Amino acid sequence: MSQLTPPEGTGTVAAKRFTFAPRMAKTPKSFIREILKVTERPEVISFAGGLPSPALIDVEGIRAATVSVLEQDGQVALQYSTTEGYLPLRQFIADRYRSRLGLQVSPDEILITNGSQQCLDLIGKVIIGTGDHVGIERPGYLGAIQAFSLYEPVFHPVTLHNDGPDREELEAACRASPVKMFYGVPNSQNPSGITYSESCRKEVARIMEENGGLFVEDDAYGELNFSGSSMPSIRSFLPGQTVITGSFSKILAPGMRMGWVVAPPAIMEQLVIAKQASDLHSNYLSQRIAYEYLSHQDIDSHIRKIRRAYRHQRDIMIRMLEEKFPESVSYTCPLGGMFVWITLPPGCSSMAVFESALKKNVAVLPGLPFYVDGGGSNTLRLNFSNSTPDDIEEGMKRLAGVIMEMCIQ
Amino acid sequence: MSQLTPPEGTGTVAAKRFTFAPRMAKTPKSFIREILKVTERPEVISFAGGLPSPALIDVEGIRAATVSVLEQDGQVALQYSTTEGYLPLRQFIADRYRSRLGLQVSPDEILITNGSQQCLDLIGKVIIGTGDHVGIERPGYLGAIQAFSLYEPVFHPVTLHNDGPDREELEAACRASPVKMFYGVPNSQNPSGITYSESCRKEVARIMEENGGLFVEDDAYGELNFSGSSMPSIRSFLPGQTVITGSFSKILAPGMRMGWVVAPPAIMEQLVIAKQASDLHSNYLSQRIAYEYLSHQDIDSHIRKIRRAYRHQRDIMIRMLEEKFPESVSYTCPLGGMFVWITLPPGCSSMAVFESALKKNVAVLPGLPFYVDGGGSNTLRLNFSNSTPDDIEEGMKRLAGVIMEMCIQ
Repeated sequence: MSQLTPPEGTGTVAAKRFTFAPRMAKTPKSFIREILKVTERPEVISFAGGLPSPALIDVEGIRAATVSVLEQDGQVALQYSTTEGYLPLRQFIADRYRSRLGLQVSPDEILITNGSQQCLDLIGKVIIGTGDHVGIERPGYLGAIQAFSLYEPVFHPVTLHNDGPDREELEAACRASPVKMFYGVPNSQNPSGITYSESCRKEVARIMEENGGLFVEDDAYGELNFSGSSMPSIRSFLPGQTVITGSFSKILAPGMRMGWVVAPPAIMEQLVIAKQASDLHSNYLSQRIAYEYLSHQDIDSHIRKIRRAYRHQRDIMIRMLEEKFPESVSYTCPLGGMFVWITLPPGCSSMAVFESALKKNVAVLPGLPFYVDGGGSNTLRLNFSNSTPDDIEEGMKRLAGVIMEMCIQ
Repeated sequence: MSQLTPPEGTGTVAAKRFTFAPRMAKTPKSFIREILKVTERPEVISFAGGLPSPALIDVEGIRAATVSVLEQDGQVALQYSTTEGYLPLRQFIADRYRSRLGLQVSPDEILITNGSQQCLDLIGKVIIGTGDHVGIERPGYLGAIQAFSLYEPVFHPVTLHNDGPDREELEAACRASPVKMFYGVPNSQNPSGITYSESCRKEVARIMEENGGLFVEDDAYGELNFSGSSMPSIRSFLPGQTVITGSFSKILAPGMRMGWVVAPPAIMEQLVIAKQASDLHSNYLSQRIAYEYLSHQDIDSHIRKIRRAYRHQRDIMIRMLEEKFPESVSYTCPLGGMFVWITLPPGCSSMAVFESALKKNVAVLPGLPFYVDGGGSNTLRLNFSNSTPDDIEEGMKRLAGVIMEMCIQ
């Protein structure tokens, strides 16, 4: 056997001849990962990422909740637990749907996940067979494109207007082939910042009801509506065919990776099987901390504080767009969330803008990866949640200069 | 639209006509989940589960580590982080492979996961295409069977002897079809408690090297070897074709869901893409807590304490098997880990034993779900880590009575 036992090293020749599962070839490389790497220098004002403001994470409240959980019930909080998640936390989420949106949800319809990103993986795993038809907004959330791509669907991008997805395109897609699910972010979408109108919600629900497919309603930003008044959930209009994904990342702390999915019982049963196979259950200590925090701190007041801060940051970004940018640059004015979406004049390359802006220490995110069918080469996503008002003002000034120079003859 | 908006309720008729992805039909229902539900009464002495002893979780040490992380670096520890995981924690794991097993591992070859269960999902996702050939021990770990089944492989069960998998069967399986990977638990296997001999490790490595497939080495129990001396990793003999999965669940705390996977660079690149699509990254707060704990507490002394306790518990279980059980009942004598594997006389049904034992308030786990090809109907898995010595003595006495009565004419 000795010829088989070379000293350990990095000579991993054998791995090179290895062929991976075909699904891996379908997955877009994470363009954002690569871009974020070059924008990490501290002198860069970054609008490229998607992070909440660290100043709005209640570290002291979370510390108090953690100490309380570990002192009162440490052995249990650190042991294995159930796949579905901590029941009082699921009850809290159900109660909040009732108080916030008038939505009747049972805790049995809720599964705790590792952030809402894991919901997308579990939904893809349970719903999407190879070649199944999946509708998605155009532009669409990159994390969903990545998660679903691994289950090898055929994507049907549907143009996102300022009031929501194009209904004619959605109906045409459903007529051409049975769309098994449509994935959308009705509140303050990532990347566009767009919120569906109420009539759009109803129309989309009607189309999906007629078509028989699921609506996957990603509601990561629903609590971050700046007016404080919420739009109805798609589930209000399509109760048996809607799956909602939710997240504590934007209102509590993203590092704890706490999210959840709401689904009708028959779908939940499958999601629980997939969750168990994926990682048994979500971090139980963090579930206990989240519940302890939510039941002892004033989460509504905390959310109002986040909304006020982000609204102010959005206002500055929009004011800079109005005052400093050429008229041929259009942009969305988000009602909540964390992003503004910019469309440059036709022919103006957002990759070129990205590169020039970076030389002036401003980072932006080119919109290309949000298009499953190509296109969007003159679009940019700008994040306003993770920069101070002063940095937004200064960064937008520099970005305006770059765009004036590059895009305007 | 009003006809479309019924009051919210549980009338989820539409979901019932929904068809799931074909992969869901391939997944075994979680038999263990159902069984554990009926064994949860406090008066039941349970050998059915797979939990570490709660008394051996260092709650106070983890509390101190948590407070320290949140006080010193709370805003960062609660923010989004990198997909690969916290570098100092990956470096700690790499260093421990060197000191414990003489294995050269770079932190770049390590990805932090949600317990080692998630490694199995990510490996399945990256490696297994529909219909690919996957070898597995017979009996094999149920969590792996569940995770891999969702990627629709053809399983090739290979009989597990007291010194490891049957080499002739493994070679025959590889000759018949290219086995893309073989999954095994060389140290104190779940469910059997079996540890591969060193010569078996070398032979299995040689067969996989000739075959070109991966060896997926699940090492959840490697630290729990009762003698304190470790066997070499399969990676020592097959560096470019071995993927190792590891876990903090058995030495730190399972509720934090902290595990990791070690893979050669070309495979790691794909695992990171799959991890990002699955849930962006593992709970960062828990990664920071784990590192803080490991770098300030004496983990070796803690592990020695766990080994001593579990060895004592195993000794009592084995003594009871020797003294109280009929000679026609055979069993493994594990060198570590948490499980003893029982084989009843042919024709004696472990399901019937399960039911009768439960009436005497003792829970055992029938071995059937560990066989991907049927069989094992006269086998039982007994867990010794989660019962006190007294309960083991009493529970085994009752179980002996049940088996004497049911299996011996």
